[in-house]
Amino acid sequence: MQKITPWEVEGDIDYSKLIKEFGTSPISDPLLKRIKKHTKELHFMLTRKIFFSHRDFNWLLDEYEKNNKFFLYTGRAPSGDIHLGHLVPWIFTKWLQDKFNVELLFQFPDEEKVVFKKDLTFEDTEKFTKENMLDIIALGFNPKKTKFLIDTKHANLMYKPAMQVAKKITFSTVKATFGLNNQSNLGQIFYTSMQAVPAFLPSILKKKNIPCLIPLAIDQDAHFRVSRDVIPKLGYYKPAIIHSMFLPSLLGPKGKMSSSSEQDTIYTTDSPSTVESKIKKYAFSGGKPTLAEHRKKGGNPDIDVSFQYLRMLFEPDNKKLSKIYNDYKSGSLLTSELKEILIKKINTFLKKHQQKRELAKKQVNKFIL
Amino acid sequence: MQKITPWEVEGDIDYSKLIKEFGTSPISDPLLKRIKKHTKELHFMLTRKIFFSHRDFNWLLDEYEKNNKFFLYTGRAPSGDIHLGHLVPWIFTKWLQDKFNVELLFQFPDEEKVVFKKDLTFEDTEKFTKENMLDIIALGFNPKKTKFLIDTKHANLMYKPAMQVAKKITFSTVKATFGLNNQSNLGQIFYTSMQAVPAFLPSILKKKNIPCLIPLAIDQDAHFRVSRDVIPKLGYYKPAIIHSMFLPSLLGPKGKMSSSSEQDTIYTTDSPSTVESKIKKYAFSGGKPTLAEHRKKGGNPDIDVSFQYLRMLFEPDNKKLSKIYNDYKSGSLLTSELKEILIKKINTFLKKHQQKRELAKKQVNKFIL
Repeated sequence: MQKITPWEVEGDIDYSKLIKEFGTSPISDPLLKRIKKHTKELHFMLTRKIFFSHRDFNWLLDEYEKNNKFFLYTGRAPSGDIHLGHLVPWIFTKWLQDKFNVELLFQFPDEEKVVFKKDLTFEDTEKFTKENMLDIIALGFNPKKTKFLIDTKHANLMYKPAMQVAKKITFSTVKATFGLNNQSNLGQIFYTSMQAVPAFLPSILKKKNIPCLIPLAIDQDAHFRVSRDVIPKLGYYKPAIIHSMFLPSLLGPKGKMSSSSEQDTIYTTDSPSTVESKIKKYAFSGGKPTLAEHRKKGGNPDIDVSFQYLRMLFEPDNKKLSKIYNDYKSGSLLTSELKEILIKKINTFLKKHQQKRELAKKQVNKFIL
Repeated sequence: MQKITPWEVEGDIDYSKLIKEFGTSPISDPLLKRIKKHTKELHFMLTRKIFFSHRDFNWLLDEYEKNNKFFLYTGRAPSGDIHLGHLVPWIFTKWLQDKFNVELLFQFPDEEKVVFKKDLTFEDTEKFTKENMLDIIALGFNPKKTKFLIDTKHANLMYKPAMQVAKKITFSTVKATFGLNNQSNLGQIFYTSMQAVPAFLPSILKKKNIPCLIPLAIDQDAHFRVSRDVIPKLGYYKPAIIHSMFLPSLLGPKGKMSSSSEQDTIYTTDSPSTVESKIKKYAFSGGKPTLAEHRKKGGNPDIDVSFQYLRMLFEPDNKKLSKIYNDYKSGSLLTSELKEILIKKINTFLKKHQQKRELAKKQVNKFIL
C-alpha cells in the first residue's frame, strides 16, 4: 500500500510503480547523455537516479537547443522549519540554474498549509516564510536570476491567472486527484489553481511564451497532472517536470523525512551535538544486532538510513560512496563508524549553511519579486 | 416554483415566501420609524417596501446610536452594460450614504462572471468594469466617502482574508446553498469567499471592528447566508443586510430585468428613441385588449410593468403615483398614456444620467481604492 498526495506520503514507496501510476518517464541513460552535452558533468542526483523520473524533459532540451531557454520553478509551502529532506530538490535546482544559466521562480504558497492544517494561521506562515527564505538563499541561488513569489503578497499578479486555471478544473477532478471530498474546505479545493500559476507567470510578465522546468519531489506531481492539461488551453507551454525521491525519515527507509516528529528529522538549524545525538539515537541501521554477527555477515546499506543520506545528499564522490557501501556490506565498517562519517559530513555542511543563513538575512529583499 | 440563486432567478417570485425560506425579517413599520429618527425622511423604496427585508438592521441601529458608525458595502459583477434594474439598490445605497453620512465600499468582482459564463473573459470584464464605473459615479456617490474595490486589482488586499473565509466553508455548504455540483469549476466553488471579504476589509485596514450594512437585491443573499456564519469566527461583526426586490423585465411582472435579452432591458446608455420604442413595443401591459373594454373595466396596475417602473424607480411622489394607479385602474388612463408618462420620466432621467456619465470619465481614479 502506498499513498502519495501533496499532503500525505504513506506506506512503502515503490518508485517504479509511481512512474507507471502517474504516467511519467524514467530518467534514461540516453537522456542523461543529452543533458551532459549541455552541462558537461552530471550531478550525482542524476547519475544515482535520486531524480528518477520526468515529464517532457526531452521536449525541454529540444527547445533549449533551438535557443528557446527555459526557466525553473520550484517552491516551499512555509509551514515549519527546513529539514534535510527539503534540500534535495533545491540543491539540484541550484545546479540546474548554474549549468543552464537560467532564471528561477521560487514560490512560497503561504496560504496552502493554512487551509490544510487546522491550527496553522497566516501569522505562523509569515514567520516561516521569513525563516525558510534564509535557508533557500543560503544554498547559493544566483540573486540576479532568482525571484521569490509569495502567494498572498503577490496575489495581484497571481489571482487572475489562477482564476483562469480554476475555470478549467472541476471538483470531480480535484476529488479524484487529491482525495478531496464534500467536507473539504473551499481553500483546499481552490489551492491547486494557485500552484499552477508560476509555471506560466513569467510568460505573462514578459509577454512571450517561455518553457518551464519544475524540479520537485514526486508527491507534488499531482498538482501538475491536473494543470499540465489546463495550461496549454490558456496558450502557454505545458511545463516539463523532473521528480526526486524522498529523503527517508531517520526512523527508517520507508516514508519521507517530515516535520511531524522531531525524532525523524534533522533541521538546518540543529547544533552539531543535536545532529550527533539524533543520528546516534534514531538513525535506522542496516547493521546486525551484535558486533560479532555484523563482522561476520555484514550490514545492509540499502536499508541503512545513514548510508542513504550519504548517497542522496552528503557524499558526491562515487568512489568513496562505493567503498563505504562495500565495507558496510562486508562487515568491516560498523554502524557506529558509518554514523560517525555521516555526522561529520552533516555538521560540516550545516556549519557553512548556518553561516550563509546568517548572511542571508541582509539579502532577502533582493530576492523578492 | 421559484429558483433564486446569485446566478439564476426563475419562476414567479413570491417575496414573502423568500423571507420565510431565507430566514430574513420583513421591513416593519417600527423599524421604518426608527430609521426615520436618523434620516428625517424615508426613501420611497422603504415606504413602498421595494426594500422589503433585512437581517440585523436593528442591531446596526443599536450600534449607530452608540456612535459606532457602519459602512456600506455593495457591488457589481461587471459582465455587461448597466440597465435600469441594476440602479434600484444603488440609488437607495446613495440615499443611505447621504442620510447616515457613511463610507461605501463598492466591489467589482471582475472574476465572478468569468468563471460562471463559458465565453466571458477577463478582457471583457475589464472593459465592463470601466464602463460600469461610469454609471455608478453618475449616480452621485460621495467621492470622498466611496471606494471601488476590484477583485483582481486588489487581490493583494483580498486574497489572504478570502482564504481565511474559504478555510471555514465546506464544499457541502456551497453545494447546498448555490446549487453547485461535482462538475462545477474551482473558481465557481471558491468565489463566495471573495464576496465575503469587503464586509470586513475596512475592519482589517483600519484595525478596528466596524459594522457593515449591505444593500443588495435578494438573489445575492445566498453569499451572506454562508459568510455571516464565518465572519464572526474571524473576529468581525456579522454584516447587516437590507434586501430589495427585482425590477421586472419589460416583458412581464415575473422574473427580473436582465441583460440576457435586449428586448426586456433598458440600458442606461439607450437613446430617447430606443427607450420609446422598447417601452411601446415590449412593456408588458395590465390594460384590456380593446380600448372600449379598458375604458369600461379599467386596467391592472399591479401587473403593468410601466406602472411598476414608476413605482419602483421613477415616480417618488406618492400622490402622483396614487393618481396614476387609480386612473389606470378606473380605465380613465390608457396603456399608451401610461407608457408616455414612463417614457418621459425615463428619458428625463437618462438625459441627466448620460451627461453625468460623461463627466464621470475624469473622476474614475478618485474612486479606486
